[in-house]
Amino acid sequence: MDGQLILHEYAQSGNCYKIRLTAAHLDIPLIRREYDIMRGETRTSAFLDNVNANGRIPVLQVGDRFLPESNAACVWLADGSHLIPNDRFARADMLHWMFWEQYNHEPNIATLKFWRLFVGEDKLNDVQRAQLPGKQAAGEAALKLMDDHLAREPWLVAGAFGLADICLYAYTHTAEAGGFPLDAYPNVRRWFADVAAQPGYIVMDS
Amino acid sequence: MDGQLILHEYAQSGNCYKIRLTAAHLDIPLIRREYDIMRGETRTSAFLDNVNANGRIPVLQVGDRFLPESNAACVWLADGSHLIPNDRFARADMLHWMFWEQYNHEPNIATLKFWRLFVGEDKLNDVQRAQLPGKQAAGEAALKLMDDHLAREPWLVAGAFGLADICLYAYTHTAEAGGFPLDAYPNVRRWFADVAAQPGYIVMDS
Repeated sequence: MDGQLILHEYAQSGNCYKIRLTAAHLDIPLIRREYDIMRGETRTSAFLDNVNANGRIPVLQVGDRFLPESNAACVWLADGSHLIPNDRFARADMLHWMFWEQYNHEPNIATLKFWRLFVGEDKLNDVQRAQLPGKQAAGEAALKLMDDHLAREPWLVAGAFGLADICLYAYTHTAEAGGFPLDAYPNVRRWFADVAAQPGYIVMDS
Repeated sequence: MDGQLILHEYAQSGNCYKIRLTAAHLDIPLIRREYDIMRGETRTSAFLDNVNANGRIPVLQVGDRFLPESNAACVWLADGSHLIPNDRFARADMLHWMFWEQYNHEPNIATLKFWRLFVGEDKLNDVQRAQLPGKQAAGEAALKLMDDHLAREPWLVAGAFGLADICLYAYTHTAEAGGFPLDAYPNVRRWFADVAAQPGYIVMDS
């Protein structure tokens, strides 16, 4: 390891939970530093200058270096471990699911959870409100895509539990709180149970 | 290599160009198969069932296996090459830029280019129109973040040209066509010239 590892985070964020769950599976200790994103604590000049110019958590601090983007931090932690496939195609396929998560899943499922649970649907501005139906439909399409895949496959990649499962689990397993009923996705719910049954699993609010 | 490589693409998409540029740098031949996304050719049941259930290009076909997500395809091509750093932190930092691109850069800069150039600003629906100012501001913030970084560093990652530069170059170098004047970002423009000067470079419409 390169010195101590500090997770700059907001504990209720699924993107931060991913990193804690990856570290728990690998038995890697993390020092946790909490920022209240509702109070703008990641938009201060100290944070922008020293932690992440993009003004977002999570950031994994490795010694005196800073690594933003949740999925990149998970890859750093899991580098060389059993959570990343040895096979070249499977390794890229893992990244396919992780890029898909950031483009098609998180901006819909995580954003609607944030808007509905943290901001409050009555406090949304007009631009956010206009996007609700589109994000709802796109989130449902993302869940259906996962469900169809998990109907055929035990795990997301190459028949084995790994980093893609951890990264996708984070926001999927709390999707209901964001307004996505999960009854229609039985294979996703089967996969939830399988992820939670893995040795090393920790719950989100641990 | 695992059999022939087929790039399922829409040539004018920056996400597809990334893959061609990566392959050109590595001297890897690609068979190109074009889909007209304006005519819905990636939403047919044949495409959804056989190429990508997510209905999007690019997809890199490796023998009989299909790899969606542009940045994952670039990693597959570049796996083990000089375009990916050997150092563990630098490798994750490369992914940080690539995940950032898909979350903070592409949905703003590429989407506005698509809306303005391909759809036409007068044909946007109300939800799209409502998002224009927010996406414009977020795209400008992304360009500023890159410009600030490239004022201090020659390349995006670890002082050397690599896959993150290729992936970020694709949509950044055509940002002006999407309504992002680049005069304000001199370091980004210096970096454009440096990317284009690398041996192996190909232009987007090659």
